[in-house]
Amino acid sequence: MQNEDGKQDAQHKCDIGFIGLGVMGANLTLNLADNGYRVACFDLDQTKVDAILAKDSAERGDKPARLEGCNSYTELLSKLKAPHLIILSVPAGDPVDHVCNHLIDAGIKADDIVIDTGNSLWTDSVEREEHYKSKFIFFTTAISGGEVGARFGPSLMPSGNPYAWTRIEPVLKAIAAKVDPETGKPLETYTPGQPVTEGEACATYIGTMGAGHYVKMVHNGIEYADMQLICETYQIMRTALHMSAAEIAEVFRRWNDGKLNSYLMEISAEVLEQLDPETKQPLVDVILDKAGQKGTGLWTAVSALQVGSPAQTITSAVFARSISGLKEERVAASEILKGPHAPSLSDDEKMEAVHKLEQALYCSKICAYAQGFQLMATAANEHGWDLDFGEIAKIWRAGCIIRAVFLQSIAQAYEKDEGLKNLLLDPFFADQITEMQSDWRTSIADATMAGIPCPAMMSALSYYDSYRSAVLPANLLQGQRDYFGAHTFQRVDKPAGKKFHLNWSDPDRPQVAIKK
Amino acid sequence: MQNEDGKQDAQHKCDIGFIGLGVMGANLTLNLADNGYRVACFDLDQTKVDAILAKDSAERGDKPARLEGCNSYTELLSKLKAPHLIILSVPAGDPVDHVCNHLIDAGIKADDIVIDTGNSLWTDSVEREEHYKSKFIFFTTAISGGEVGARFGPSLMPSGNPYAWTRIEPVLKAIAAKVDPETGKPLETYTPGQPVTEGEACATYIGTMGAGHYVKMVHNGIEYADMQLICETYQIMRTALHMSAAEIAEVFRRWNDGKLNSYLMEISAEVLEQLDPETKQPLVDVILDKAGQKGTGLWTAVSALQVGSPAQTITSAVFARSISGLKEERVAASEILKGPHAPSLSDDEKMEAVHKLEQALYCSKICAYAQGFQLMATAANEHGWDLDFGEIAKIWRAGCIIRAVFLQSIAQAYEKDEGLKNLLLDPFFADQITEMQSDWRTSIADATMAGIPCPAMMSALSYYDSYRSAVLPANLLQGQRDYFGAHTFQRVDKPAGKKFHLNWSDPDRPQVAIKK
Repeated sequence: MQNEDGKQDAQHKCDIGFIGLGVMGANLTLNLADNGYRVACFDLDQTKVDAILAKDSAERGDKPARLEGCNSYTELLSKLKAPHLIILSVPAGDPVDHVCNHLIDAGIKADDIVIDTGNSLWTDSVEREEHYKSKFIFFTTAISGGEVGARFGPSLMPSGNPYAWTRIEPVLKAIAAKVDPETGKPLETYTPGQPVTEGEACATYIGTMGAGHYVKMVHNGIEYADMQLICETYQIMRTALHMSAAEIAEVFRRWNDGKLNSYLMEISAEVLEQLDPETKQPLVDVILDKAGQKGTGLWTAVSALQVGSPAQTITSAVFARSISGLKEERVAASEILKGPHAPSLSDDEKMEAVHKLEQALYCSKICAYAQGFQLMATAANEHGWDLDFGEIAKIWRAGCIIRAVFLQSIAQAYEKDEGLKNLLLDPFFADQITEMQSDWRTSIADATMAGIPCPAMMSALSYYDSYRSAVLPANLLQGQRDYFGAHTFQRVDKPAGKKFHLNWSDPDRPQVAIKK
Repeated sequence: MQNEDGKQDAQHKCDIGFIGLGVMGANLTLNLADNGYRVACFDLDQTKVDAILAKDSAERGDKPARLEGCNSYTELLSKLKAPHLIILSVPAGDPVDHVCNHLIDAGIKADDIVIDTGNSLWTDSVEREEHYKSKFIFFTTAISGGEVGARFGPSLMPSGNPYAWTRIEPVLKAIAAKVDPETGKPLETYTPGQPVTEGEACATYIGTMGAGHYVKMVHNGIEYADMQLICETYQIMRTALHMSAAEIAEVFRRWNDGKLNSYLMEISAEVLEQLDPETKQPLVDVILDKAGQKGTGLWTAVSALQVGSPAQTITSAVFARSISGLKEERVAASEILKGPHAPSLSDDEKMEAVHKLEQALYCSKICAYAQGFQLMATAANEHGWDLDFGEIAKIWRAGCIIRAVFLQSIAQAYEKDEGLKNLLLDPFFADQITEMQSDWRTSIADATMAGIPCPAMMSALSYYDSYRSAVLPANLLQGQRDYFGAHTFQRVDKPAGKKFHLNWSDPDRPQVAIKK
């Protein structure tokens, strides 16, 4: 069979076109090749094309070439099987449109698919889907897992046209991280040319355009909270329990064998064990305590405020990074602002405190994840996305930063009850917190009395206690608002939605019912 | 002297034109009239013009008319002294431009001033100032104090062209709330025709366009935090100390005589004392505990996230309103999610707990205000506003919702030290917290153990403890980020800004210094 330009047999044509061969793009390309796809590669910087061909050659040894380099968009299209499947890994924003327009000029067709893997703003993607729909099918997938994930199996959160998904699914499932469905643990090899082909793939269709990137954003928000919670337990052990970095690393290793097992717990232990090659001190002690951020935690917090979903632990983690940035101010303030001294503890008391902290971290973590899932549900409702929270939890079990067996329990919670209103209400998690909350509360009370900040842990507990409060003091708040601003209130003994206003300067006059 | 249309002597012309006679506009107009200004009034709804003329007539008795009604924009302009000074009180958004364009058609001149008093988005105002600059001077003032404030003295936060301010200043200072400069207490009469003419006016030039509305937004954010903190102390007394609404009202009255003296404390006592005319129960017990919000608290929190200023107490107050909205979910959750029971206390223990709560509320309040002022400083830096925090604190001492003697102490802090980095560092406030923090910590620890949510109070304490921490666990966090994402870190022993990356898979290789 001859193709349009008559030069190449369809059987020799490439399965996928790949545009943008930066670190992420190159690794995704090699991942595709490992999984048996022939890939035509293009980058505006031709040295990157050469580099990946060389890398492919080095990795595959004497097996046949899996990649083909291209010099232009036209050449790329000419080397692909029709209908074309093209993946982009270019910076978010204008470069995406730049590439799309070049593909149009090069003759891309209406049933061709372009998958944007960048960190585009989801609202931009919605516009692009509409804008390009007569020219080709614009699709996106969010990616988590960084460089290593891209190479050996990321967590993928695709969204867009559901019909396109049927053509995309086998490709993304092939390159995604894999999980043992029984244990929920990642199946990993990290060996070039030997992809994991068993297990459940960490790629599932999230929803119509935008949903995947939104879910990825919330993943990152949860990641912020999870990291901050780990840091707070470290700070308590370091400052209140006077433990060394190595001792804390050992505790984290032990915790990583239990219910707190997770990638973040594991790497925290590794970071704490690491000595600085230069000074031979624990590396953590020479790292400056000023945290950076790239925005996704912040966006999650802003979105939570905008849709009115109480993601306070995620938000407190974002603010903890902000306040860490004020290093010079903090050092100056530490000389002026007094606090209590942490009491000295016996070894037994320390062990006891460490044991309680494990429960505190676990309970706080449940709340942080509950907030993330609650936020996704609220946003889905707002944007008309039909999210499957069990599937989302499943694809986070491997490949991404928050990967953990813990997500298996979350998946099970949503599989048992699709309409679960809040993760806290799942019988498993409710029981866990019931059992551990006394240690959680004691840890926070002790940190409070010892003067150790634990904003994320506190916000998690107040989330729990607020959510389980049948009555909150918002009745007084509504009274205040009606008093000074005639903002009205509802009554517990009248139909929901009916609004009342008291004439506070003459309260014996009947309250005015104001129509909704 | 004849004016342009030759019909009216300048001495009989009006000083100010007022457009938009809703509740706020009508009250501002009467306030202007009380202060001796002749006002020409216009509203698209002519019945509102008739209504305010009737009200003026009723109020002034046999004194000469202070207002003149107008039928059109042209008539309004014809009745004003030149250069014209016109005040708008119309809904934010398109109606502002609608009026501005009609004024242009009616012949407004380049040195005429239009003051928008609505709740416009400050970025819109920046655009309007530019857009209309060849036609007239567009100026804005934010207003706090609601209907009563508008009538008898609001707190005003004007911003815009500084030259225009010299013409506007006497008018806004006349109608603003007044304060006794010695005590910092409001001077109030609330009697039509008898404006307060002594004391310091709660109106000061905030800065170039946008600054005034930004400051007003932060005022509202602080207001959210202040209200939520009061509600949390109420909840603790109600739920953990088993006190009645009337008993708590009495405590609030007592607190209002001391360092917590404020309008919000006063009205909280009044709300708690109030019986429902229908059921004769405490009104607070029949008000549904679902809080509404109009957005300004949310905007403050979003802005804090965006500029990276840790306004966590303000934000937690916004989330507390969100979670209050989930009434049905909370009621269901209260049946499932277990918590501790508050221990029963003797009367002496209760009194002791109430005493501690007073200190806890006060310390938390200091932190909430510190966050608000820190946010304004950060935003001012970002937007190039030159804010005078002493003056801002002063104009909040009366007329607005957060008015309190407490703001006198804030004003003094910034007067003593213009460059004060954080309110917490002021010697007066630092001493206050030093003295009271043990009670603050105990109150939070007790609430933690009793299962009473106090998110705002906790976030205030963790703000304090974070801000006074010379070392925060962000060093571990940067280690985590460098491990999984090569996000780099700075070192405590190397120049600030220089970034390092460890090759974690081969850590003995020297760290790579990465240029900033």
